[in-house]
Amino acid sequence: MIDNPYYTDAVHQDFELISIGRLELEEGGVIPDVKLAVRTWGTLNEAKDNAILIPTWYSGTHQIWADAYVGEGHALDPSSYFIVSVNQIGGGLSTSPHNTDDDSISMSRFPKVRIGDDVVAQERLLREHFGIETLALVVGGSMGAQQTYEWAVRFPAKVLRAAPIAGTAKNTPHDFLFTETLNEQIWSDPGWNGGEYASHEDVADGLVRQAHLWATMGLSTEFWKQEKWAALGFESREAFLTQFLEPYFAAMDPNALLATAWKWQRGDVSRHTGGDLAAALGRITAKTFVMPISEDMFFPVRDCAAEQALVPGSELRVIDDVHGHLGLFGVDPGFIPQVDAALTDLLATPVAADDRSEQAASV
Amino acid sequence: MIDNPYYTDAVHQDFELISIGRLELEEGGVIPDVKLAVRTWGTLNEAKDNAILIPTWYSGTHQIWADAYVGEGHALDPSSYFIVSVNQIGGGLSTSPHNTDDDSISMSRFPKVRIGDDVVAQERLLREHFGIETLALVVGGSMGAQQTYEWAVRFPAKVLRAAPIAGTAKNTPHDFLFTETLNEQIWSDPGWNGGEYASHEDVADGLVRQAHLWATMGLSTEFWKQEKWAALGFESREAFLTQFLEPYFAAMDPNALLATAWKWQRGDVSRHTGGDLAAALGRITAKTFVMPISEDMFFPVRDCAAEQALVPGSELRVIDDVHGHLGLFGVDPGFIPQVDAALTDLLATPVAADDRSEQAASV
Repeated sequence: MIDNPYYTDAVHQDFELISIGRLELEEGGVIPDVKLAVRTWGTLNEAKDNAILIPTWYSGTHQIWADAYVGEGHALDPSSYFIVSVNQIGGGLSTSPHNTDDDSISMSRFPKVRIGDDVVAQERLLREHFGIETLALVVGGSMGAQQTYEWAVRFPAKVLRAAPIAGTAKNTPHDFLFTETLNEQIWSDPGWNGGEYASHEDVADGLVRQAHLWATMGLSTEFWKQEKWAALGFESREAFLTQFLEPYFAAMDPNALLATAWKWQRGDVSRHTGGDLAAALGRITAKTFVMPISEDMFFPVRDCAAEQALVPGSELRVIDDVHGHLGLFGVDPGFIPQVDAALTDLLATPVAADDRSEQAASV
Repeated sequence: MIDNPYYTDAVHQDFELISIGRLELEEGGVIPDVKLAVRTWGTLNEAKDNAILIPTWYSGTHQIWADAYVGEGHALDPSSYFIVSVNQIGGGLSTSPHNTDDDSISMSRFPKVRIGDDVVAQERLLREHFGIETLALVVGGSMGAQQTYEWAVRFPAKVLRAAPIAGTAKNTPHDFLFTETLNEQIWSDPGWNGGEYASHEDVADGLVRQAHLWATMGLSTEFWKQEKWAALGFESREAFLTQFLEPYFAAMDPNALLATAWKWQRGDVSRHTGGDLAAALGRITAKTFVMPISEDMFFPVRDCAAEQALVPGSELRVIDDVHGHLGLFGVDPGFIPQVDAALTDLLATPVAADDRSEQAASV
């Protein structure tokens, strides 16, 4: 185990570690005791039909949702909904290479985890720990969108509404290659040592190089041209890099980034249908809003729109933001209002289960 | 000096090394004897008014112009024009870190060279060696576009027509950062050794990682989604990487890539006008076609269009190509025809100097 101050209460407030027991993985490995880092807001009602699930993205945790997306006045309002954010397996807060006390899976021995494994773990958590059988909404960004699609395809009856933001149901070849270049920044750092470093600080150079790739592909050409970093309170391009992006990634655990990157690269709901993406997305019964970000350089709108066209009854709601993919941080004044507007519409949309409940109530 | 087989006649045909003597550089350094690697096609006419100059791009040489752009049936037709392609200083064929026998500037001691230095060297070459005072056209791609703009701003009376393809007059912040990530792949390779390696093969890992960045930013998301590598004769995405992109960059000299990257990062014609880009581009008298590539991820059309709007009498001619920036290789069947059509139009456009010649002839 490695102590990394990033993955503590000092940075990530109010989460609970909940054990869901042994998890057999799609790739054949096993995690003997999965502990999921879970943040909740609000109260589950008696009917247990007001639950919203938020899975997390690469390098991200529940904290960004707490900081930017969830709260009174937002669509994700704890006064109406019981909101559960579950951090990814391997992502640094839930059971992960650096934080497990189980030597059989620590550090370089951590098994390969897929998007489907996370979703299976989340479903078990919700059912066994909270007694939740259906979700009013699953909403996630980037890898959270991958998990959102996986939920909607794997458990269609359990997902009433879905909002994949800035992510795809089937990872694209370009995304696979981009993610590989992120990995290479870590692998090429001698301090990484095949995954057996003593501290994440041994891999500082590689993590900083990875931050620089996020600077070019994660933001957008317009972000830099319009010097949007100034509105974020930085004096210069260089200050934005050295005071924000570099320390942001340098604080993280390299093996956690690699474990989740591996998962990201292989996200693909068509694994359920022998590679037929249309068939997989055709299974979705959730009312779905597909929400790409206009300037996203690696989940471009057209990739998301092509998938949206395959989801029955879905709508495309493009979020306009010059920040590109990292617009997900919610720093543009216009970003969260657009998300809120779309999610408010989505949550107000009647779905099949409402009809069933109403029919049941009227009997 | 390092022997690198890439920079020889085996790969680069029919070029001549021409000395232009001592060159004092904008950054304060000196190259005591600049040898420019020059390829020519066709014959200079008596009036010496049929010359076309082609500067070269990052990692590129005159050879791609020989292979794809120049020849009978193309706009760049040697039966009508005297075409001169001059390889960049520091780029591997002209005087460069690895090939100079002058210890004072070899390898890590190579001085910083700017776009303006190249253009000054080219002007001297054309005037002193060939007796050329005006150019019917300057055309170049990417860093060749930077040099094209520099020519048109620095020597407006000498440039009758200009065609910057997939490049900008003032490098963008995003481009600076992207180029820095290319550099970091080399710098982070222990074999680079501060620029004092014994063979470019010592830096093979870094060069391969750089090739992978080109895979994601140099091509386009659509290139990969549409599996355009298949049309190029490769069996798989992996084969395209390992049989083409990786060996392509791994063959090159790391210091040459770094020297030209430094130059690329700082290309800026507004250095002539105290930072006023509109004033600099307003100096251009050449008839100019600005030719971005539709899917270019780091010289996006809008960046080029914004500059085009500042060039008097210019036209925007977007080249439609899903290959993105590396469409410059001319591999898409539609690419070269679009370039030829635009350059044919441009060469057929009367310019001020024609009027002057006609007036002179009629006197």
